[in-house]
Amino acid sequence: MTIAESAETLTETQFTELTEALTPEQEGDSEPIRPFAEPVFELHLGGKLETRSTVPLRDAADLSLAYTPGVARVCTAIAERPELAHRYTWAANTVAVVTDGTAVLGLGDIGPAASLPVMEGKAVLFKEFGGVDAVPIALATTDVDELVTTVRHLAPSFGGINLEDIAAPRCFEIEDRLRAELDIPVFHDDQHGTAIVALAALRNAARLTGRPLSELRAVVAGAGASGIAVSTILLEAGIGDLVAADSKGLLHRDRTDLHPVKAALAARSNKAGLSGTLADALKGADVFVGLSGAQVGEEAIASMAPGAIVFALSNPTPEIDPAIARKYAAVVATGRSDFPNQINNVLAFPGVFRGALDVRARTVTEGMKLAAATAIADLVGDQELTADFIVPSPFDPRVAPAVAAAVAAEARAAHVARV
Amino acid sequence: MTIAESAETLTETQFTELTEALTPEQEGDSEPIRPFAEPVFELHLGGKLETRSTVPLRDAADLSLAYTPGVARVCTAIAERPELAHRYTWAANTVAVVTDGTAVLGLGDIGPAASLPVMEGKAVLFKEFGGVDAVPIALATTDVDELVTTVRHLAPSFGGINLEDIAAPRCFEIEDRLRAELDIPVFHDDQHGTAIVALAALRNAARLTGRPLSELRAVVAGAGASGIAVSTILLEAGIGDLVAADSKGLLHRDRTDLHPVKAALAARSNKAGLSGTLADALKGADVFVGLSGAQVGEEAIASMAPGAIVFALSNPTPEIDPAIARKYAAVVATGRSDFPNQINNVLAFPGVFRGALDVRARTVTEGMKLAAATAIADLVGDQELTADFIVPSPFDPRVAPAVAAAVAAEARAAHVARV
Repeated sequence: MTIAESAETLTETQFTELTEALTPEQEGDSEPIRPFAEPVFELHLGGKLETRSTVPLRDAADLSLAYTPGVARVCTAIAERPELAHRYTWAANTVAVVTDGTAVLGLGDIGPAASLPVMEGKAVLFKEFGGVDAVPIALATTDVDELVTTVRHLAPSFGGINLEDIAAPRCFEIEDRLRAELDIPVFHDDQHGTAIVALAALRNAARLTGRPLSELRAVVAGAGASGIAVSTILLEAGIGDLVAADSKGLLHRDRTDLHPVKAALAARSNKAGLSGTLADALKGADVFVGLSGAQVGEEAIASMAPGAIVFALSNPTPEIDPAIARKYAAVVATGRSDFPNQINNVLAFPGVFRGALDVRARTVTEGMKLAAATAIADLVGDQELTADFIVPSPFDPRVAPAVAAAVAAEARAAHVARV
Repeated sequence: MTIAESAETLTETQFTELTEALTPEQEGDSEPIRPFAEPVFELHLGGKLETRSTVPLRDAADLSLAYTPGVARVCTAIAERPELAHRYTWAANTVAVVTDGTAVLGLGDIGPAASLPVMEGKAVLFKEFGGVDAVPIALATTDVDELVTTVRHLAPSFGGINLEDIAAPRCFEIEDRLRAELDIPVFHDDQHGTAIVALAALRNAARLTGRPLSELRAVVAGAGASGIAVSTILLEAGIGDLVAADSKGLLHRDRTDLHPVKAALAARSNKAGLSGTLADALKGADVFVGLSGAQVGEEAIASMAPGAIVFALSNPTPEIDPAIARKYAAVVATGRSDFPNQINNVLAFPGVFRGALDVRARTVTEGMKLAAATAIADLVGDQELTADFIVPSPFDPRVAPAVAAAVAAEARAAHVARV
């Protein structure tokens, strides 16, 4: 058994303990030092991240190189040739993990301070899995203009911007504007990380069931950040047809209540011209991707085509119990670590940024995302590929390097690499 | 010989090599990987700072505590009780080192990217000397309103704001506004770090020469950020009289060309009502503090009172050659590491923030700065105190803890501490 295999699955008991069972201890009148004695609070005491020097500071000679007067030589060189900042500062390897705290996990708009544990966790994953330094930046504004301006001001200090847990539809405008204004990678992970891993999983599910993507008809429940992004990447990857649904029903060209991003998706999807409900669309469909948080009935899954592929990705409660879905579907995936086939963004974002930073990419193109998905999918060999193993483990040490190499190669091919 | 003693002085050769002698190597047509082969450039390759996880990430169980789903418990707790962010995130121990790149070392307005090596160096010193995590934030704006707004947006992610290398007079308004708007320590190190260490040095020079501060008349050359701040702290510490000078002459109440911060200093200093030149003011003065970058003639120093104290702090060229000053003065200090008595901010800022963060201070009061100066001065015992040793070495491991303890105690006494 490899480390990856032993590491990849939580027991259901562990998962339940983490998500449901434990409650805060009662507190007395005086403030205790540790009000929450659960392991997850113990772990978080003092946070999960630190900064460290990578240079020695033993004596005055060290100090005079790392700081004044020696540092002035490096500053002067960068002032004369700005591109040297990439070589002689940490910025080139450092990503800002930026949020406004409006769509944190499944918790919603809990504000910047309460979002920090997630942003720190993300920063930790960036370093551990991708060797990317990362700084949590939880902003005290939810205004689109202010957020864009603030991130633009921060840009000289970072090699990339990872947007995180920003509510739709604001997240689309924020990402679009920052991508237009900055010459470093800007990547909303809730959209594109999810999309990359979902596409990787679907590629392998299609491979397992012996069909090209072009022969599959997909239904995506949810038209928020991740629903739009998954729909977009599946269309770019050449899926046969795809219809997305929001809380009011299927997206089609005749809907007049759609914000521009949803309207754009409606215009380029749903070739079949379906209207009506999610359940209507699922009849005879090949693929279901759930990113809505809403439940889907057993009958609807049962009505799908033979060899159906069901990705019920909402956390902590999938759109349908995976055990029930498995009665009808050839392949089932979820967002949870206690079931097989976890669609986990950590398979994508460390390698995407690693590759983009390695070649000083000016942006992350659609092609780089597609390349990342293919790289993830290809790590599962034909011998390994089963209905319960369509994506590699997050702890598979090949993942981030493979994604990084694919992303870097595509960046060069697309002429957005600077080295 | 202690480590501190062996470490505290660069040879003049080392200093000269770092500041003057070396020039970039010639480059060929194709971009070389390492255009500058000097040690200071070698050291800076890839930057000087990194982020690191402080929690294990070996398997799915670790991942589920540090990230989803476990992290949601911590987020929810902070959303319900915002003060818990202090306990369960890294923000409480993390300082943003914020600049706009307009007054970097002696280099002037070189912009944010070129300032990054200094900000990284500062971040490294924060961690090494104070155990404070620190993040370089070099902003792409020099507009006061935009800078204040940007830092206010960043505030949830940090426990304190260290302003750095922002040009006067904008730096005064930026600091004042951020101090008013934020409930975390905001500290412009170029002002207050310099002021604290200069006061510590002056306390010991006065002790050595057997006079109370109240009997000394001081002349401060320079009315930029550090000149104003040093003048202010010396007045608060009870110096007998003090006159500051800018490039146009001495600051006095009848000057009509002063911006508000200089005018305020003129109003509360110069009891003697001096006008005229710096040289005029130095006749019979007890203390000279140079923070101007301009040169002062030997005759002017020779005209000072017996037992004069000369702090020629401009870098890399002191206002007067310390060897010449020493012919007339009882005590001479500089900003350089290759002469005795280096007035080095690193004696102050790591301990100031360490102490302020330890007690969750809402601000840094004038009293906390005075306490820091006294703590630094008191580390030099009567037996050690000589004309060539009026401040401890930056590598004296007692410095930051002593400063932190004094700052924390004063924060509690002033009721600005939250724990």
